[in-house]
Amino acid sequence: MEKKRILSGMRPSGRLHLGNYAGALENWLKLQEEYDCYFFVADWHALTTNPAAAFSVEENTIQMIIDWLSAGIKPDLPLFIQSKVKEHAELHLIFSMLITKERLERNPTLKEQVRDLHAETILYGHLGYPVLQAADILMYKAHLVPVGEDQLPHVEITREIARKFNQTYAEVFPEPAPKLTTFSRLPGLDGRKMGKSNNNFILLSDSPEEIQKKVRTAVTDPQKVRKNDPGHPEICNVFKYHQKFNPEEVDEIEKDCKSGVLGCVACKQNCAAKIADYFAPLREKRVYYENHLDEVRDVLSEGTRKARAVAEKTMEEVHKAMKMG
Amino acid sequence: MEKKRILSGMRPSGRLHLGNYAGALENWLKLQEEYDCYFFVADWHALTTNPAAAFSVEENTIQMIIDWLSAGIKPDLPLFIQSKVKEHAELHLIFSMLITKERLERNPTLKEQVRDLHAETILYGHLGYPVLQAADILMYKAHLVPVGEDQLPHVEITREIARKFNQTYAEVFPEPAPKLTTFSRLPGLDGRKMGKSNNNFILLSDSPEEIQKKVRTAVTDPQKVRKNDPGHPEICNVFKYHQKFNPEEVDEIEKDCKSGVLGCVACKQNCAAKIADYFAPLREKRVYYENHLDEVRDVLSEGTRKARAVAEKTMEEVHKAMKMG
Repeated sequence: MEKKRILSGMRPSGRLHLGNYAGALENWLKLQEEYDCYFFVADWHALTTNPAAAFSVEENTIQMIIDWLSAGIKPDLPLFIQSKVKEHAELHLIFSMLITKERLERNPTLKEQVRDLHAETILYGHLGYPVLQAADILMYKAHLVPVGEDQLPHVEITREIARKFNQTYAEVFPEPAPKLTTFSRLPGLDGRKMGKSNNNFILLSDSPEEIQKKVRTAVTDPQKVRKNDPGHPEICNVFKYHQKFNPEEVDEIEKDCKSGVLGCVACKQNCAAKIADYFAPLREKRVYYENHLDEVRDVLSEGTRKARAVAEKTMEEVHKAMKMG
Repeated sequence: MEKKRILSGMRPSGRLHLGNYAGALENWLKLQEEYDCYFFVADWHALTTNPAAAFSVEENTIQMIIDWLSAGIKPDLPLFIQSKVKEHAELHLIFSMLITKERLERNPTLKEQVRDLHAETILYGHLGYPVLQAADILMYKAHLVPVGEDQLPHVEITREIARKFNQTYAEVFPEPAPKLTTFSRLPGLDGRKMGKSNNNFILLSDSPEEIQKKVRTAVTDPQKVRKNDPGHPEICNVFKYHQKFNPEEVDEIEKDCKSGVLGCVACKQNCAAKIADYFAPLREKRVYYENHLDEVRDVLSEGTRKARAVAEKTMEEVHKAMKMG
C-alpha cells in the first residue's frame, strides 16, 4: 500500500528553539518514518503578518533548514521553499474566487490573531491566509495535515475550497483530513510562550554553556526562595523541561523538590546539562552543515525541484478542469 | 522621447457589441497611435464575479481578439492573455500583504457592484479585484491607465500599493496616473445598458440583415406612435446611434423627427444601414481572421511572449527589492 501523503510547513524563523522542536519538528521526525512527507518553508505566509519579514527570509531559511537536517529530517525528502514554487500563487488566486470574505472573517484563528496583535486593521493577505494554506495543501493532494486543535478551522476551509473547486469545475482535489496532534507546549524561561520576540528561548543550537546560562535565569516556583524550602514542581518551568528532556529522573526530582532536598541551583544545572546532552548530536551535525552550506542549498533545490514537478502536474489538471489557463 | 506606456484590459466577453466599441475599443484605436500600448484579456478578472466563467474563456477570448484585430488593433502590439503570464498571480499575492481589508471594503466601485449583484456575500477575490488590477498595471510599469470616472478609485488603490511596496522594500514601481477618458455610453436597444445578459445588443460582427432586424425592435420615443407625430430625439435610443454612426445626417434627422416629417420605420432603416456601413470593413477583415485562426493564435502567443519578457524583468526587480523569491 502506498504511504499517505502529509504536508506541513514552518515559517522561516531562523534557528529553531525548544518550543519549535516540541511543537513541530519532533513530530516531523516521527511522521517521516510513516508517511510520504512534504515539508516546506512557508515564506509567503511570513509576510501575512509582517511584509518586511521578507528581508530576513533567506538567512532564516538556511538556518532553519540546517536545524531540520541536523535534527534528523531526511535530506532526500521534498523539502522546499514555498515562494520558489510559483504555482502556489496561481492556485491561491484561483481559490480566492471560491470562498467568500464573510467565511474568512468567521475564521476563529484569525480573530485571535487580530486580538493578539492589537490590530485595528487587517491585511487583505492576512485575511486570505487560509486560502494560501489551502493552495499549499491541495497542490500536493495531501491526505493528511498535522494540526493542533487551534488549526482545525483552517483545514476545514481547505476542505470547503476543495469541494467548491470540484463542484464548480471538475473533480481534481481530494479533501484532506486533519491529523490531530497533541503538541507538547514547552513554556519559555519566563513561563510565557517560548518565542524569539519574548527573549525567553533556548535554541536547539545553543552551546552547553549558553544553555546553562539561560536555564539559570528560568523562573521556578516563586515560593521556593531558599534551597530547603519545599517546591511546587507543577508550576515550575524548569520541571517542564525535565519532563521533556530528562524523563528518567523526573520522579526523583519531583520528590526531592517537594521535600526541599533539591535546591533550584542544582536542579537547573542538571536540567541544562540534560538539554545539552539531548541536543549534542544535533550540534555536531550542525557543525557539519555549517561547513557544507552548498549541500544544504542542494537539498533545498532538489526538494524544490521535486515539489515543483508535482505542482506542475496538479496545475495541468486544474487548467484542464477549468478549461482555462 | 519615448512613448508613454498604457495598459488596458477587457474581460473575455466573446464577440463585442456596440457598447464595448464605444466604451473601450474605439478609444484603444486612438491610443495605439500615440502610446506604447499593452492590451490584455483580463480572464482571471472574469472569475471574480463568476468562477464558472472559466469554461467560456477560451472561445470568448478568440472571438474578442478577432474583433480587436478586425477593428484595427495592431497585431504586433503586446496583446496578451492575463492568465498566461503567471507572474500576475505572484505579484497579486505579494501585493495582498500591502493593503488592508478595510481599505478594499471602502472601494466605492465594489459597493456599487455588490448592490447591483444583490449579493449578501462577496467573494474574497472579488474584494481583491483592485489588488489584481494593481498587479496588472504595475507589472508593466504603465505610466497611464485609461479609465472612466467610476474607475478612478481603483487607480488610486494601485498608486497606494506602489507607494507601499516602494516604502517597504525598495523603489521599483512608478505611480501610474489615471488617463481620464469620457467614454460615449451607447444605450442598448431597450435603453438599458447594452449587454449580453440584457439581450439588447448589436454585435460589431452582425450582418446588415441582423442589424436591420435588431434596430427595428429598438425603443424610440413612446409618444411618437404614428409617422407624423412629432418626436423627441433626446429620449430616443436610435437617435443616439445616429449621433454616433451617422453624424453627417444627425441635424437633419433631429429636425425631421421633431417636425414629424420623418417616421420611425424609415429612420430605423437608415440607422441600421449606417451602422452596417460603419462596420463593413470590420466584417470583411473578420472573415479573413475567421479563416486564419492560426494567425490569431500566433498574435496572442507572440503578444504573450512579449508581455512575459517584461513581467519576468519586473519580478526580478521585485525579488531583488524584497531580497526574497
